[in-house]
Amino acid sequence: MLKLDFHPSGRHFLQIPGPSPVPDRILRAMSLPTIDHRGPEFGALGLALLDKIKRIFKTESPVIIYPASGTGAWEAALSNTLSPGDKVLMFETGHFATLWHKMARRLGLEPEFIGLPGYEGWRHGVQADMIESRLKDDVRHEIKAVCVVHNETSTGVTSDIAAVRRAIDAAGHPALLIVDTISGLACADYRHDEWGVDVTVSGSQKGLMLPPGISFNALSDKAIAVSQKARLPKSFWAWDEILEANKNGYWPYTPNTNLLYGLNEALDMLLEEGFDHVLERHQRWAAGVRTAVEAWGLEIQCQDPTVYSPVLTGVVMPEGIDADEVRRIIYERFDLSLGMGLGKAKGKMFRIGHLGDCNDLTLIATLGGCEAGMKLAGVALKGSGVTAALDYFANHPLKGDN
Amino acid sequence: MLKLDFHPSGRHFLQIPGPSPVPDRILRAMSLPTIDHRGPEFGALGLALLDKIKRIFKTESPVIIYPASGTGAWEAALSNTLSPGDKVLMFETGHFATLWHKMARRLGLEPEFIGLPGYEGWRHGVQADMIESRLKDDVRHEIKAVCVVHNETSTGVTSDIAAVRRAIDAAGHPALLIVDTISGLACADYRHDEWGVDVTVSGSQKGLMLPPGISFNALSDKAIAVSQKARLPKSFWAWDEILEANKNGYWPYTPNTNLLYGLNEALDMLLEEGFDHVLERHQRWAAGVRTAVEAWGLEIQCQDPTVYSPVLTGVVMPEGIDADEVRRIIYERFDLSLGMGLGKAKGKMFRIGHLGDCNDLTLIATLGGCEAGMKLAGVALKGSGVTAALDYFANHPLKGDN
Amino acid sequence: MLKLDFHPSGRHFLQIPGPSPVPDRILRAMSLPTIDHRGPEFGALGLALLDKIKRIFKTESPVIIYPASGTGAWEAALSNTLSPGDKVLMFETGHFATLWHKMARRLGLEPEFIGLPGYEGWRHGVQADMIESRLKDDVRHEIKAVCVVHNETSTGVTSDIAAVRRAIDAAGHPALLIVDTISGLACADYRHDEWGVDVTVSGSQKGLMLPPGISFNALSDKAIAVSQKARLPKSFWAWDEILEANKNGYWPYTPNTNLLYGLNEALDMLLEEGFDHVLERHQRWAAGVRTAVEAWGLEIQCQDPTVYSPVLTGVVMPEGIDADEVRRIIYERFDLSLGMGLGKAKGKMFRIGHLGDCNDLTLIATLGGCEAGMKLAGVALKGSGVTAALDYFANHPLKGDN
Amino acid sequence: MLKLDFHPSGRHFLQIPGPSPVPDRILRAMSLPTIDHRGPEFGALGLALLDKIKRIFKTESPVIIYPASGTGAWEAALSNTLSPGDKVLMFETGHFATLWHKMARRLGLEPEFIGLPGYEGWRHGVQADMIESRLKDDVRHEIKAVCVVHNETSTGVTSDIAAVRRAIDAAGHPALLIVDTISGLACADYRHDEWGVDVTVSGSQKGLMLPPGISFNALSDKAIAVSQKARLPKSFWAWDEILEANKNGYWPYTPNTNLLYGLNEALDMLLEEGFDHVLERHQRWAAGVRTAVEAWGLEIQCQDPTVYSPVLTGVVMPEGIDADEVRRIIYERFDLSLGMGLGKAKGKMFRIGHLGDCNDLTLIATLGGCEAGMKLAGVALKGSGVTAALDYFANHPLKGDN
Repeated sequence: MLKLDFHPSGRHFLQIPGPSPVPDRILRAMSLPTIDHRGPEFGALGLALLDKIKRIFKTESPVIIYPASGTGAWEAALSNTLSPGDKVLMFETGHFATLWHKMARRLGLEPEFIGLPGYEGWRHGVQADMIESRLKDDVRHEIKAVCVVHNETSTGVTSDIAAVRRAIDAAGHPALLIVDTISGLACADYRHDEWGVDVTVSGSQKGLMLPPGISFNALSDKAIAVSQKARLPKSFWAWDEILEANKNGYWPYTPNTNLLYGLNEALDMLLEEGFDHVLERHQRWAAGVRTAVEAWGLEIQCQDPTVYSPVLTGVVMPEGIDADEVRRIIYERFDLSLGMGLGKAKGKMFRIGHLGDCNDLTLIATLGGCEAGMKLAGVALKGSGVTAALDYFANHPLKGDN
Repeated sequence: MLKLDFHPSGRHFLQIPGPSPVPDRILRAMSLPTIDHRGPEFGALGLALLDKIKRIFKTESPVIIYPASGTGAWEAALSNTLSPGDKVLMFETGHFATLWHKMARRLGLEPEFIGLPGYEGWRHGVQADMIESRLKDDVRHEIKAVCVVHNETSTGVTSDIAAVRRAIDAAGHPALLIVDTISGLACADYRHDEWGVDVTVSGSQKGLMLPPGISFNALSDKAIAVSQKARLPKSFWAWDEILEANKNGYWPYTPNTNLLYGLNEALDMLLEEGFDHVLERHQRWAAGVRTAVEAWGLEIQCQDPTVYSPVLTGVVMPEGIDADEVRRIIYERFDLSLGMGLGKAKGKMFRIGHLGDCNDLTLIATLGGCEAGMKLAGVALKGSGVTAALDYFANHPLKGDN
Repeated sequence: MLKLDFHPSGRHFLQIPGPSPVPDRILRAMSLPTIDHRGPEFGALGLALLDKIKRIFKTESPVIIYPASGTGAWEAALSNTLSPGDKVLMFETGHFATLWHKMARRLGLEPEFIGLPGYEGWRHGVQADMIESRLKDDVRHEIKAVCVVHNETSTGVTSDIAAVRRAIDAAGHPALLIVDTISGLACADYRHDEWGVDVTVSGSQKGLMLPPGISFNALSDKAIAVSQKARLPKSFWAWDEILEANKNGYWPYTPNTNLLYGLNEALDMLLEEGFDHVLERHQRWAAGVRTAVEAWGLEIQCQDPTVYSPVLTGVVMPEGIDADEVRRIIYERFDLSLGMGLGKAKGKMFRIGHLGDCNDLTLIATLGGCEAGMKLAGVALKGSGVTAALDYFANHPLKGDN
Repeated sequence: MLKLDFHPSGRHFLQIPGPSPVPDRILRAMSLPTIDHRGPEFGALGLALLDKIKRIFKTESPVIIYPASGTGAWEAALSNTLSPGDKVLMFETGHFATLWHKMARRLGLEPEFIGLPGYEGWRHGVQADMIESRLKDDVRHEIKAVCVVHNETSTGVTSDIAAVRRAIDAAGHPALLIVDTISGLACADYRHDEWGVDVTVSGSQKGLMLPPGISFNALSDKAIAVSQKARLPKSFWAWDEILEANKNGYWPYTPNTNLLYGLNEALDMLLEEGFDHVLERHQRWAAGVRTAVEAWGLEIQCQDPTVYSPVLTGVVMPEGIDADEVRRIIYERFDLSLGMGLGKAKGKMFRIGHLGDCNDLTLIATLGGCEAGMKLAGVALKGSGVTAALDYFANHPLKGDN
C-alpha cells in the first residue's frame, strides 16, 4: 500500500505559488458529511456561497463556481463567449499566458499572441499601450476578446488590469476583457467591476487556501449577453444552465460538495479577517521576501517594481547555476518545496510562494531553507537574506496589529 | 455565518443513489496535506492511482482521471471521439440517458434517441435487439457511436452491456461503444475489456465512496485511435496531453490532490476487502431491499427482474400519493434522505440508495424510516418491509462471512 | 502494523451504555492544534468551560474537571472529603455501586453496603427509606457520607436522588450526599443544587458524547469546607490547588487540552439544542426501546417503572439462553455492540445504550440487529420489537419537532 | 460561542517543551471511532500497545498506561511503592523536582530534598555523589526510594541516571530508584532496564507527540514486589488490578480510547523512523539551537555541557531584561509560544522546546522569532543566532540522510 504520509519529522513547507498550504480549519470543514445536493440544506449553502464569493471578486454580477480545477475555467471563459474562428488578442507574460494561448488554438479560435520581444515579456507585465495600439488597428473589430493574465504565476508579475481596460476604452474597441487571476485572487488587489472586466477566471488552490478542484468565472452583463450567441460547443461549462440552477442555490449537475464546504470556510476566514487586511498581509510578506533577495545580491525575475507580485517572487540564479538542482537540494535537505522555473524560465530561476495560510515565521523558515540550500549548491550570496527579512518584518508591523 | 452542521442529534442517513456516505477513513485520507503536484511524491501517487484504478474498471487500457465531476466525463467521452455533426445512437433508459442525449445535442452532434415507447423505457433496460436492428439499417455506417447507460440512476435498472456489445458485433457495425456507469462502478459487475467497451464514463461519488469531484474515462485502443481524428474542440478534456503526462504520474494541469488521496484510500479499501466481495455485498443488499418492497405490497420501478440494480431501488407510490411529499415527511421526521423521482418519474416514485459504505443495519434503519414515513403519509402497506428485510439478511449471510 | 479501522463496510453501531458514539463535530473540535496550557488563550478556554459545565450539573458551585477517566473522579470524591477509617453508607444498585464500594475499602474507609436482598437490588433503584432508617440508627453520626449511584449503568435503573436527600434530611443526619451520575449526566434529569448533593461524580463518555478521559466532581460549599479537614492522602485529585488555579482558567498541572476542546464543543451542542430538549429526547428513545422489549415479550431488567433509565435498557434473556452468546452473534453478524451483563447479571441480560449522538433510525437499526440476532440465537420472541418501536416513534414526535 | 481557532493567518509555532506539536497523522488516528472497551478489538489494540510501549522505555517489564495526565503518574509511582511516613530522597534539579517533592509531602511521605546550594541546582544535573554519600549515611536503610528527574523541563538539564544507579549500588542501599522522564522519553536516550530503574514515570505530550492525557509507570520486578506491601491508599492508580486486566489487553476501568489510538500511531511513527534516528535528531536540533544561543552571546541555563538537554534549551536573559516580556513580544508579533521561566527561574530565562514533530526549518523559524523579538525587546545580541543555526544544520546532516 502506498504510504501517503510522505514527509519526515515535522511539517513540510509548501511554498510553491499554489497549491498553497490548506489551513486545518478548511480541512476540518471539508470533512463534514456529504449531503444530498438536491436537498434543502444544499440550496441554503449554495445561495450563501454564491453571494459571498462576489465580495472576493468585488463584483455585483454572478460568479460561476465549477466543480473542476482552474484550467477548466480558462476553457469555460472562452467557450461561453466565442465562436469558432474568432480572433482573440492575448498577451505573453509567461508560461501560463502561453498555455492559455495554446488552449485557444486547440479550441478553434485564432488567437494573436503579442508581447515584449524574447524573454523580456517574462520579466515585465502586460503593456497596455501595445494592446491599445493593436486594437486601434483592428478597425473592423475582428478581435472579439482581449485575454490577459493578472498575476503571472510563472514569473511573479502582477499586471495592471485597470490600464488594460483604459487601453481598450481608448481604442473605442468592443472586445471583451477576459482576465486570468487564478493565482492573484484573494492575494492581490482585484476589482472585477471597477476595472470593467467581462470574464474573470480563477481557482481555489491559491489565495482561497483550498485544495485544487474548484474554479470560477466571474461575469459581466456584456459577457452574459454575448454568451447567448457564442457558438463554440459547450455543455459542462455552459453558463446558462448553471445560472438558472444557481438562482435557488443548486447546480445542474453534481457539484463537489466537500470542496464547497471548504470554500465556505475560506470565505468566512477571509471576510472575518477583513479582506483589506488579507491583501496588506500579502504585500508585506512580498516586501520582506524581496528584501531577502536583495540582501543575497540576487535578481528578482520581475524587472518592473510597479508590478511586483504580492503572491510569489521569482529568484534568478547566477549564470552557471541550475535552479532545479538548487531546488532539489533544498527539498531533500530542508523539506521545503519551491516552484520550478517553467517554460522559457526553466532552470534559470525558482519561485517562492508567499500566499495564503502563512505567517512571518513560515517565510523566515522558507528563506532560511533557501539561503542554506543555495550555499550548499555553491551560489555566492552577498549577505544573509533571512536576517534582512527578519529585520523587515520586525520593523514593519501590519497595520491593525502592533 | 452559515452553520454547516445541518443535522440534529445523531448521524444523517444519506441513502440517495449517490453521493453515497463517505467513510471516515476516506475523509481522513482527504485531510492529508496538499503537496506539490509537480514534485516526486505526487508522481509516485499518480502512478499508483492510475494502476489501481484499472482493476476497478477491469481493463488493461488507460483510465483518464479528471479533476471534475461526472457530467464532465460524459462530455469528455463525446468530445474526444466525435466530430461536429456526427450521428450517435443513444438509448432512453431514464433521466440520465435523457440528459446525456441533451448534452450530445448541445455539443453539435446528431444523436438519435431510441427506446421503448412512453414510460416503458424508464422501467426496463437497454434493448439490445433494438440497437442491433438500428445498426443493421445503418448500412453507410453513419452512426459513429452507441451510447448507453449501464446503471440508470433515475430508475434502478442495470442494463446488460455484454448484450449491447453482441448486438453491435452482430450488426457488423464499427460504431464505438460508449457506456456511462457513473453509478454502477464498484457496485455492479462491470467489465470494460471483456465487454469490449470503447469509452467508459464514471464518477467518484457512488461506489467509490468519495465526495463528488473526480470523474473517469476508461479507454480502448480503438477509442484512442479515433480520438486522434475527432474534431470536436477540446482542451481541458483532451486525452492526448493527459495520457502523455500520466506516463510519469502527473497531469498537464493541477489535479485535485486531496480528492486523489481519497481515491487512493478508496481503491485500497475495495481491493483489501476483495472486489468480488464488494459486488456480492451490493447484490445482497439490493435483494434485501426488494424483499421489503414486496412485503409492503408496492411496485419496484424496474419491471424486468434480470436487470434489477444492485445500487438502488425505485419504489413506486400508489396512485394518488405524491412521492415527494412522502420523501419530505421521511426527511423531516427521520433525518433520512432518499432520491426523488426525476424527469418523467417525478412525484411517482422515490429511490433508495443501497451502495457504498453501508451495512445491513444501515439499510434496516433506512427501510424503517421509509415504512414509518409512508404510513404517516397515508400509504397503505400490505405488511412490514423492515421485518422482511431483517429476515432476509439474517437468513442470507454473505459468503466468506457467516 | 495494527490496523485500527476494525470494522467492515459501513459504520459500526456502538450502542453500549457508554462510551457513546462521538459526533464528528466533536472529533473535529478535538483535532484543533494543542496550545500552551499556560498561555492566554488557554485561560479563556478554561474559564468558558468551567462556566458552561455548571449549567449541565445545574449548579452554581464549582465543578472540577479532571484529566482522567471516570473511576478517578470516584476516588477524588472520596479522598477529598473523608479520612482513613471513616464510615460511609453505600447502596447496592448493581455492578458499579459494587465497584465503588470496593474502591472505598481499598482507600481505607469503612463502607457499609446496604440494599435489597439478593438480586433484587440489581432490579430496583435506591430505597430511600432504608437509608433513612439506617441514618436514624446512626445517632452518633459516625457515617460521614451517603454514596449512591444515580444511573446504574449495569442495570438501567435511575434512582430518585431527591428522595435520598429527603431521607437524609428526615433523619436529621449531617452525612455528605455523594452521587455518581457518570452515565446519567446530560441524558437523565439531574439537579446538583436543587437536590442538595454535596459531590457529584461524572464522566465524559456518556451523555457528553466525548471519548473517555475527562471526569468531574461537582461540589457544594459543605463539601469544600469538609475537604479542608479530610485526611485521606491526595495530591492529583486534591480540590484545593485546582480550585485556586481554576480561578484564572488554568490547572495546576497539564490538563488534557484536546479533550477539553471536545468538551467545549459538546457543551455548545447541548446548550444550542436546548438542554430540556436533550433530556426529553432520551426519555422518548427509552420509551421506544421499552416498547420493543415488550413486543418481544421479554423482561426489562429494571422492575420498577418509576425508575426506568432514559440512558440504557437491560433486556433479560429467557432461561437457558446465554446473553453473551446472543451478543456475540449480533456483533459478528450485524456489526452492533451491546453492553454485556456485568457481575451478578453476567450472561443473564444484555444492555442497549440509547444515549448521546443517536436518532430514531439509529435505534431502529439497533433494535433490528437485536431482533434478528435473538432469532438466530434461538430466543423465542412474541412479536416484532422493531415495528413496535417504529410505530412508537412515528406516533410520538418530540415536542418542538413535528 | 468561544472561538477555538485562536490564531491568525498561518500555523502557530508551539515551541514550548511540551505539549509539543501533535502531528496531523496522530490527530487523524485520534479521530477513529470510539469502540467498546470490553470488545475483542479493544483487547487486540491493548495488547499491541502494551508490547510496543516497552520498546520506548527499553524494558522487558510491564509498563502501566494511565488514562490521566503526567502528574498522576508521579502519584502512582509513589503510592504503589511507599507507605505513610516513608522516607524518600529527592534531588532538586528545578521546578518539577520541587513540585514532585511537594506532592510527596502531601501524600504523607517524609521526603528529604537535597541538591546544590541556591540557584546552582537549577543549572546543573543530579549530583550522584551527593546521593551516594547520603545513602551511605542511611545505615538503617530508612530511605525507601531515591526520586530524580531525568530531563528537568524547567531548566533543560538531562541528568545522568546511570550514575545515580551506580551511586545507589556503591552505597549498597536497597532503596528503589524512581525516575521522572516525563519530558525526556522518546527525545533523550533512556534505558529503564539497563540503568536499573524501578519505576519510570512519563507522559504523552512530549516526545510521544500526543496531546496530554496519558501517562506511564514502567516497573521493575522489585517495584512490583514492593507494591504488594506498600500501604499508601490507592485504587485508581493501583498497579495490581491494571496488571491483571492488561494480561488480555484490557483495563479495569474505562481507558481513554481515542488517545490510545494516538499512542498506537505515535509508536508506529517512532519505530518506523527508527528509534536511534529519533534520538539523534533531537541531539542535533539541540546542538543547532545552542549554536544560536552562543552566536547571540547569551548564556544557556544549563551550565554543565555534559548534561545539556536534547529536548529544550533555557536561554538566560541579561540583567535588567524581563524574560516574560520578551516572550510576550515574541508571542504577539510572531505567533510563537516559548516556555516561561518557572519557580526560581521566573522572569530570568525562557525555554525553547525542540522536540517531537519538528524539523530544521521549524527551528529556524523559532530562532528567527526569538532573535527578532529579543531585538524588539532591547536585548543586545552579539550576532545572528539564526544564521549560525542555519550553518550548523547545513553542515551537520543527520546520519542516514545526506
